[in-house]
Amino acid sequence: MRYAITVEYDGTRYSGWQRQLNAVSVQEVLEDALGAFLGEKTVLHASGRTDRGVHAAGQVAHFDTECTIPPHKIRFAVNSALPDDVRIVDMRHVGDGFHAQYDVVSKTYSYKIYVGNTLSPLRRLYYTRVLPPLDTDAMRRAAAKLVGTHDFRAFCSTGSSAKTSVRTLYEVNVETDGDEVVLTVTGNGFLYNMVRIIAGTLVFIGKGKIPEENVDLMLSTGERKLGGKTFPACALTLEKVEYPD
Amino acid sequence: MRYAITVEYDGTRYSGWQRQLNAVSVQEVLEDALGAFLGEKTVLHASGRTDRGVHAAGQVAHFDTECTIPPHKIRFAVNSALPDDVRIVDMRHVGDGFHAQYDVVSKTYSYKIYVGNTLSPLRRLYYTRVLPPLDTDAMRRAAAKLVGTHDFRAFCSTGSSAKTSVRTLYEVNVETDGDEVVLTVTGNGFLYNMVRIIAGTLVFIGKGKIPEENVDLMLSTGERKLGGKTFPACALTLEKVEYPD
Repeated sequence: MRYAITVEYDGTRYSGWQRQLNAVSVQEVLEDALGAFLGEKTVLHASGRTDRGVHAAGQVAHFDTECTIPPHKIRFAVNSALPDDVRIVDMRHVGDGFHAQYDVVSKTYSYKIYVGNTLSPLRRLYYTRVLPPLDTDAMRRAAAKLVGTHDFRAFCSTGSSAKTSVRTLYEVNVETDGDEVVLTVTGNGFLYNMVRIIAGTLVFIGKGKIPEENVDLMLSTGERKLGGKTFPACALTLEKVEYPD
Repeated sequence: MRYAITVEYDGTRYSGWQRQLNAVSVQEVLEDALGAFLGEKTVLHASGRTDRGVHAAGQVAHFDTECTIPPHKIRFAVNSALPDDVRIVDMRHVGDGFHAQYDVVSKTYSYKIYVGNTLSPLRRLYYTRVLPPLDTDAMRRAAAKLVGTHDFRAFCSTGSSAKTSVRTLYEVNVETDGDEVVLTVTGNGFLYNMVRIIAGTLVFIGKGKIPEENVDLMLSTGERKLGGKTFPACALTLEKVEYPD
């Protein structure tokens, strides 16, 4: 039987989603806890990797098991065995044809920024800090240029193995609440570091370090150098993965 | 010269505000960093203690120094020497008569709850979890009973050295946002564990474990046993301390 699980994790102390030899990954602690309870080697297939330090509120993965214990009982037992920075928040039976990576319809990431002169101890784990002032209207105008189907190779770090760099973004929102700015990006897929480069580029535009038009140029020329820095991982959260109904 | 500083800290790894012999306190790391920069023993007088694990967004303390370096430079240098879970967010010259504890007009605390079946990795450090359902309307009605001047000894843990247990609460708000509930309590002073007992009592009422009328009885009889548990420290933040203009 195939199950899909939705996983929330605090990525602070992990090397990322994907299992590695010399570092602790989220996949490893989950596969080990599931495997120990189910009494069989368990392999998780996620919607995609998340990088070192990136968080997830709604990562999705699937696995197969012979076990017939009801899923809510498996979930409860496995959660009890997991460290407190990883939890299975949902577990459901899916058809054998379901694939957590290939069936993705869209993914939504958030990127959290606070604007201040001082590092904020209470936000240091989940936000990145930007010095004031920040022109969020300019960021919004630039964000709107990203929506649609484009070649996003200028928004990709080297080392990506993707076959094509064409992706579709359905929404790029810039929301402000007091001294906090949250970017929310929804798309059909993302290149390596894509959201962190979008965040860095929008912030550079908001700081007046590069003109808004650089976004158009990045999309037309593919030049990574026209953008802002790749912003820190700790402010990035995989919020949601959507599949066909 | 006397200075007042506003301090933000993540209380997770501290024994509380107050300096202790065998545990690291926020007061100690601040006094040590200030003292090292100013080149003189520095003693901080805070608006009050915060307990082990309690956070602050706006703790206030004062100290005296002979140093004539401008305060923004002192702040910058001292912040650079502090661990990243403690920051001086404001520093200003005050009159020699100012006292961070005795001059307090009001303090505001927040208490953060999320309602869910699963522990939330991304909220575990700053929230406490309550199983659904939670009747927040009942919590709001009970909260309203607390506003005003009352003898709060039923909302105080043993070990308090306060001379009187009469306090005035100006506001007790219960705000909901999705699966999160934030209590905000403003008063002229607080007894030992008072906000955590208010939080536990309101949640017990919201869970139907005790009737709303217990709040009236607690205020009239002073019986601690009529209330809910003392709720966890990690969800409590000292948000703001107000002084006369």
